[in-house]
Amino acid sequence: MKRALGVCYYPEHWPESVWAEDAALMADAGLSWVRICEFAWSRLEPKPNSFDFDWLDRAIETLGRRGLKVVLCTPTATPPRWMLTRHPDMLAVDAGRRERGFGSRRHYCFSHRGYREECARITRALAERYGGNPHVAAWQTDNEYGCHDTVLSYSAAAKAGFVAWLRARYGTVDRLNKAWGNVFWSMEYESFDDIGLPNLTVTEPNPAHLLDFRRYSSDQVVAFNKVQVEIIRTLSPDRPIIHNYLGRTAEFDHYRVGADLDFAAWDSYPLGFLAEGTGRDSAWKRRFLRQGDPDFQAFHHDLYRAVGKGRWWVMEQQPGPVNWAPYNPAPLDGMLRLWAWEAFAHGAEAVSFFRWRQAPFAQEQMHTGLLRPDSVAAQGLADVQAVARELALAPEVDTGPVPVALVFDYESDWAWRTQPQGRDFDYFSLVFESYQILRRFGLSVEILSPDGDDLSTYALVVVPGLMHWRAPFVEALRSYKGIALIGPRTGSKTEHFSIPPTLPPNIPDLLDMKVTHVETLPSDAPVPLKNGGTFKGWREFVEVGSRAHIVETTADGHAALVAQGALRYVAGRPDRDAATRLLRAICAKAGLETLDLPDGLRVRDAGRFRFVFNYEAEPADPACFGLTGERVLGDFPLPPAGLAILKRQLP
Amino acid sequence: MKRALGVCYYPEHWPESVWAEDAALMADAGLSWVRICEFAWSRLEPKPNSFDFDWLDRAIETLGRRGLKVVLCTPTATPPRWMLTRHPDMLAVDAGRRERGFGSRRHYCFSHRGYREECARITRALAERYGGNPHVAAWQTDNEYGCHDTVLSYSAAAKAGFVAWLRARYGTVDRLNKAWGNVFWSMEYESFDDIGLPNLTVTEPNPAHLLDFRRYSSDQVVAFNKVQVEIIRTLSPDRPIIHNYLGRTAEFDHYRVGADLDFAAWDSYPLGFLAEGTGRDSAWKRRFLRQGDPDFQAFHHDLYRAVGKGRWWVMEQQPGPVNWAPYNPAPLDGMLRLWAWEAFAHGAEAVSFFRWRQAPFAQEQMHTGLLRPDSVAAQGLADVQAVARELALAPEVDTGPVPVALVFDYESDWAWRTQPQGRDFDYFSLVFESYQILRRFGLSVEILSPDGDDLSTYALVVVPGLMHWRAPFVEALRSYKGIALIGPRTGSKTEHFSIPPTLPPNIPDLLDMKVTHVETLPSDAPVPLKNGGTFKGWREFVEVGSRAHIVETTADGHAALVAQGALRYVAGRPDRDAATRLLRAICAKAGLETLDLPDGLRVRDAGRFRFVFNYEAEPADPACFGLTGERVLGDFPLPPAGLAILKRQLP
Amino acid sequence: MKRALGVCYYPEHWPESVWAEDAALMADAGLSWVRICEFAWSRLEPKPNSFDFDWLDRAIETLGRRGLKVVLCTPTATPPRWMLTRHPDMLAVDAGRRERGFGSRRHYCFSHRGYREECARITRALAERYGGNPHVAAWQTDNEYGCHDTVLSYSAAAKAGFVAWLRARYGTVDRLNKAWGNVFWSMEYESFDDIGLPNLTVTEPNPAHLLDFRRYSSDQVVAFNKVQVEIIRTLSPDRPIIHNYLGRTAEFDHYRVGADLDFAAWDSYPLGFLAEGTGRDSAWKRRFLRQGDPDFQAFHHDLYRAVGKGRWWVMEQQPGPVNWAPYNPAPLDGMLRLWAWEAFAHGAEAVSFFRWRQAPFAQEQMHTGLLRPDSVAAQGLADVQAVARELALAPEVDTGPVPVALVFDYESDWAWRTQPQGRDFDYFSLVFESYQILRRFGLSVEILSPDGDDLSTYALVVVPGLMHWRAPFVEALRSYKGIALIGPRTGSKTEHFSIPPTLPPNIPDLLDMKVTHVETLPSDAPVPLKNGGTFKGWREFVEVGSRAHIVETTADGHAALVAQGALRYVAGRPDRDAATRLLRAICAKAGLETLDLPDGLRVRDAGRFRFVFNYEAEPADPACFGLTGERVLGDFPLPPAGLAILKRQLP
Repeated sequence: MKRALGVCYYPEHWPESVWAEDAALMADAGLSWVRICEFAWSRLEPKPNSFDFDWLDRAIETLGRRGLKVVLCTPTATPPRWMLTRHPDMLAVDAGRRERGFGSRRHYCFSHRGYREECARITRALAERYGGNPHVAAWQTDNEYGCHDTVLSYSAAAKAGFVAWLRARYGTVDRLNKAWGNVFWSMEYESFDDIGLPNLTVTEPNPAHLLDFRRYSSDQVVAFNKVQVEIIRTLSPDRPIIHNYLGRTAEFDHYRVGADLDFAAWDSYPLGFLAEGTGRDSAWKRRFLRQGDPDFQAFHHDLYRAVGKGRWWVMEQQPGPVNWAPYNPAPLDGMLRLWAWEAFAHGAEAVSFFRWRQAPFAQEQMHTGLLRPDSVAAQGLADVQAVARELALAPEVDTGPVPVALVFDYESDWAWRTQPQGRDFDYFSLVFESYQILRRFGLSVEILSPDGDDLSTYALVVVPGLMHWRAPFVEALRSYKGIALIGPRTGSKTEHFSIPPTLPPNIPDLLDMKVTHVETLPSDAPVPLKNGGTFKGWREFVEVGSRAHIVETTADGHAALVAQGALRYVAGRPDRDAATRLLRAICAKAGLETLDLPDGLRVRDAGRFRFVFNYEAEPADPACFGLTGERVLGDFPLPPAGLAILKRQLP
Repeated sequence: MKRALGVCYYPEHWPESVWAEDAALMADAGLSWVRICEFAWSRLEPKPNSFDFDWLDRAIETLGRRGLKVVLCTPTATPPRWMLTRHPDMLAVDAGRRERGFGSRRHYCFSHRGYREECARITRALAERYGGNPHVAAWQTDNEYGCHDTVLSYSAAAKAGFVAWLRARYGTVDRLNKAWGNVFWSMEYESFDDIGLPNLTVTEPNPAHLLDFRRYSSDQVVAFNKVQVEIIRTLSPDRPIIHNYLGRTAEFDHYRVGADLDFAAWDSYPLGFLAEGTGRDSAWKRRFLRQGDPDFQAFHHDLYRAVGKGRWWVMEQQPGPVNWAPYNPAPLDGMLRLWAWEAFAHGAEAVSFFRWRQAPFAQEQMHTGLLRPDSVAAQGLADVQAVARELALAPEVDTGPVPVALVFDYESDWAWRTQPQGRDFDYFSLVFESYQILRRFGLSVEILSPDGDDLSTYALVVVPGLMHWRAPFVEALRSYKGIALIGPRTGSKTEHFSIPPTLPPNIPDLLDMKVTHVETLPSDAPVPLKNGGTFKGWREFVEVGSRAHIVETTADGHAALVAQGALRYVAGRPDRDAATRLLRAICAKAGLETLDLPDGLRVRDAGRFRFVFNYEAEPADPACFGLTGERVLGDFPLPPAGLAILKRQLP
Repeated sequence: MKRALGVCYYPEHWPESVWAEDAALMADAGLSWVRICEFAWSRLEPKPNSFDFDWLDRAIETLGRRGLKVVLCTPTATPPRWMLTRHPDMLAVDAGRRERGFGSRRHYCFSHRGYREECARITRALAERYGGNPHVAAWQTDNEYGCHDTVLSYSAAAKAGFVAWLRARYGTVDRLNKAWGNVFWSMEYESFDDIGLPNLTVTEPNPAHLLDFRRYSSDQVVAFNKVQVEIIRTLSPDRPIIHNYLGRTAEFDHYRVGADLDFAAWDSYPLGFLAEGTGRDSAWKRRFLRQGDPDFQAFHHDLYRAVGKGRWWVMEQQPGPVNWAPYNPAPLDGMLRLWAWEAFAHGAEAVSFFRWRQAPFAQEQMHTGLLRPDSVAAQGLADVQAVARELALAPEVDTGPVPVALVFDYESDWAWRTQPQGRDFDYFSLVFESYQILRRFGLSVEILSPDGDDLSTYALVVVPGLMHWRAPFVEALRSYKGIALIGPRTGSKTEHFSIPPTLPPNIPDLLDMKVTHVETLPSDAPVPLKNGGTFKGWREFVEVGSRAHIVETTADGHAALVAQGALRYVAGRPDRDAATRLLRAICAKAGLETLDLPDGLRVRDAGRFRFVFNYEAEPADPACFGLTGERVLGDFPLPPAGLAILKRQLP
């Protein structure tokens, strides 16, 4: 695996006179990739069908001349103002039925076919001109699908598209009525055309209606992206096509978009997401204020490795304070280096910093870059240069076999947003909590789609809150030799968002138990477990059949953990103490050695190497926590933001 | 009085093949009433004017064959989708001027005349077919008027109706201008047609404008209901007509709807309402998490006994965890029994559980029933069976004379929502706080409408926060021999929402005092009373004339309690300590014996019997609190969720 | 300087029969000014072009006969209902694209030209009739511009006006594109007509777009006001024209409106603003619940003295509890007197109480007056009478030279609302915090506009958070002999809302330093300073050139205070401790003596006199805090709400 560094650059923002110097500085800093053009449509096509590619020719040439490889982006996230004159109905409409206007970015509805064709047109023009350009070594489609809550749109185009989609899915409206249970409140439709979008209903709409609308909306993102991919693939063969996803966003099925692409990439802003993305308390946030959550990036690295079918980048890496979080602190010196290495340890093929030079104008003028607006090196550039030097020296690693799989499913996120049942229930947090504990154990984790059909390489598979089972996964479970921890809420619905006839978890032949009902509870009323810890917020009451047995109970005597063969079912949402205890026992059973890492020390194994990261603002000595071995890079104790690479003794 | 149990059932949700078994199980469980059909319009009239009553014939017959009596509902809370094609303007419009769409329920504007006629049509069709059916023993109109904030609508139909209503009320626009004080900000109208609805004004609209709009809106609910009542009364004589009201809802004048009906009923969800309905703190909510607030149901039982002119049911009784509260815990074992008996102790003639079998589909799939979705008995069924057995054995009781009256007025709720003057002022809470203290004293309470004209049977009448006096009530007060505790804010407005010329409380011949001004205060700045406790949030400054005298003062020397003859006026909102002290002294004066019950122990007297309820999750011994006597049912100490019936020594 | 008292009166609200008695009582109470008519349009012109001035003739005559001087208002804040029939498109539109309807007040869009002409028409009619009336001694235009969030409107009129304004400002759309940096997200326009209003964009609009829209909107207020001023000035020469501004409102540039007027006035509601206007914690609010914040009024007095170019009034002074704050307590006895004297100490020429008699009807019926609704004297009247007596005896004072200037800039408020960068950053608070500390030092302060060009009379100039420099001010700084404390954020933008090429603070010849980047932090993560106190929320990283030097650092070693000649730059937002320490040292350096006043004791120097105010609810002895001297009024210790006037020893 070849690891590289890159940067995001906007030649159209700067006088052409500085391009050459910029390119020279980039190359000198050890960067090899430059992403360009994702917001440049108004410069590429100033008037409809009147293209201006000359500047881009020169920009690419200037970069290429320094040996820099270009990631060329389609500019479809920012249609120019004239596009609205051509397609006045192309704007998305919010849940309150208001058009989302021009004047920022992502001002389009994914359902609008006219705009989709315009995107095909500009993509074709770019791919025709640059598809064979020797400096254009990769493509990015659009930019951050879903950012600013743009997947769901309640436009006329969306309504028409949704109706057509439902017709294709259900064939007859009777089948739809039955699948959704529309008899419930006389919601039965006589015709597909009568079906509206699920916004502004008097009280909540049918959850099946909402779920199908989310599926439809996700499909539009997939289709929108695919149009561009197919054009580029034809006109620019052998260049990987990438999209840069977001952190903590699940509005569309990333696996399905990813299936059409070559790599995944994501935009990693560790400090930006600390305030609201991680579910941690304020003491934790204060502690990691300038470092970011020690697990948040790792989780997404693993997630996007799955979305990218093993190949992935960080397309935008935070370079310093940003402009968009509730608070925007400066990172510790060294953090850009740690963040980059954490990505590489998880298998990133490139880490690209956003952005080269801070723009002094417009919306992101307070977002730092690797250069200050006056072109002097900013705080982060030294870190980037350090990583570049280290990359040249450090050994190649591969991610190797990963012992633990954790299922993440986009539909489950949609389902539980639609029906949380208790105010705090949140799918992302549920999955991420498992991840946090596994990572505290020093275990490396693979994220798995719910369509996975091969579990044979994992010692442990964790499946929290999966809305409904997919047949290949159940088949894989049937013959699984490791341990699978499932629940709570796993298998609790059919595909059509109803309770399965045999009741959850709905795999009666594998797990002889039924969830008869559930209760949700405020945070000050948890359910104590007999052996320590609690269920917080969510508890299930189960009936256990003869083939299964109860491993653990709540203090009030209900089943808390049920076992049958390789399967374990946890009938509630364990708090950190309970989850740690349960998972540690299960890991032992699965033959996995676990560490007990402190809050700020983290480990990632990659083939023959073990990476150790210190997220603390204080020095830390990993040797105190069982982390020993020959060091390829770094010294113990690790300084703040320090890292080390150890040689690993493989079994 | 005959007491009975019932259940809500949806034959249209289930295969016809299970109806007979369901009916058998219901009868075996001791149920005698089955409510059906309130959401079944799309099955009764699948296309306009094309009815399908065959299935309903068979369903009623199947139920009736088991001796079950049917409450047949008009299905007007859920117009089918085709209704919108016929009446595209029938939807309600929210305060933000957005139509409230199809896809859930209650999607109609009460002002829309076309829809009202459609409701008459389906009601007539049902009543013609089933009015004489021997198994149809009662009717329910629509379902939960006002649920999902549906009383106020800002539609074109509402605007037109409001203008006509104002024209009828005021005759000339000059009279309206004067009554509302429209000179204030040049708000004078030249024509009724110029008057708009009071939403989206630049700052708050004239409170008189808002109050009249609320009165108009309430009148539409009354009129809407009356259309159905008159049809049913003609075509199905001798069957009681009922509506199922909600808890903690005051958007329309329930007394006026109730005047047209035979019984009242309400839908009682003790756990669902605990989180947000009771005004209690989080420690209280944690303590009664699985039991519900010990006073909330009792208050509504008494309220709806008043609305029902003495006759009332619980139409929907919570059966287990529901789906719609912020958190949805499971009740303690035994709670359904306790809840049912609390209702009977307050005079309920029937308690009907919602619902028979949990529906696995659509909006309420997480709402439990008496059966699980797989038709196995759910947690609550055993409780229901226990009550059925006990009912057969327990003595008949009647509610007997009740010594205390508490006035509850819907217009006052609208008035103080419009003009709280301090952020925390809330009419429901103000009244409910008095109720809580009286109940802690072990006193049984009657809720009284402000139109009451006979107080002679009460030793004590409490009148908190009544916006404006009605003449018969003042007349009744004039000759009243008990003690009447009024205030704060009572009599502080005229009918037209202005300050009365003689200043509040505006009964100068009965109470020689004036409220000169008021102040409102944050919760951390209460006004201490000289003898203990405080005024919280609300304090009035009064001028006392020669015929009245000051009984108690604030620590800063202002009058806190004023007396004249039978009347007491409290010039502020007492906190729990102050209210307990003041009310206890007043009760003593009124010759009422008071207990001092702990938080979870509650009493209800009914003629010759005293019911004792333990709302705690721990055992409790009522004997420690002066509750002794021969036991007809139950043993001391009471277990959690336990109850007893004692024989009472009547004076 | 002549000081006077006044009152706001609404003859149209009361029977004509009471006018004469009201006038007599006013005169007897020592009032000399009566403001009338600002909401009376529907009575002045009941139908379009059909005027009724007779009642107003009589009202003015009745008041004048008692020697009362009338402030006559244009009634343009409350257009009658018929105005909407003439101009259906005159309503403002909110940011959610909803018309803000009729039924309260201020229901007009400042951009609407038709309405502006109607306002000219009624103004001309009034000025023609009353311009020479001997009793009409001053005019007020409209009422409380900007109240109820009415400056920004997203109407069609605003869109058209904004486009025209941009065309005039930029000449070509290319210049606009460049100034705004529209290349950033392909936001470039081909035509001015394509530019929309900056509401409901998908994510935040370009800050330059927003800032220009705010400038445009502010200009409409200026233009709207100017139309009336020019008419009145012509038809009623020699009468001052005044507008009554609000507290804590910066939606338009008050200096520019003020430039066209003779005096400024503001509406002072000390208790009304305590809850949400002052940025203080709940203990502080509880302590000053009935007195108001000790600095809030003083700050606005100084601000509006600047807006009024030295001449100003309090047009509405709180008389007792009001109706519109979250909580509405009654003031301490004596507070109206203290508030009035604080205003006079700051140079007010009149203090006018709002309102004469409490109206029993419409929106403000819970707002007290000097009389109760039943015409009996309310709590506040005695205070008013006391001030009247004292004014007759107290010596004339003038505000004299003020040693400290504090810059307040409306554009900076708009800029930092648009781009707070950290959640808590708020321009008003930033400036007000400096004011609070200076006032605790016993220093009198002058508010300065950023266009100020003469600093020579000040020992100290404080310039926090000024968005961009104006050339005359920088020129004045260049030769300034005192000390100027600037920052944080001062000079951080160009006029077009971009980062200046030389980086902030952008006066490199005066201050040889650069702010390279900033960070924002949650309140629980302040940045400690080496010498005590912290930076809270906002910290800048600076590079200091050879001509400047670092005076103080943060505990982590970054520059915190930089000095060069007369200038000091503070690179963060100091908390109260740090700000007190830094400012005290700077004051010493500037030769200013500082006191250390406790929370509730405040001082204002005015020429030969020093005013001392006790805002505590307890007695206080100013002598303990260095406040001594011959007393012209008042005795030590001061009672609650007490005040004293001392003779000052002038240097």
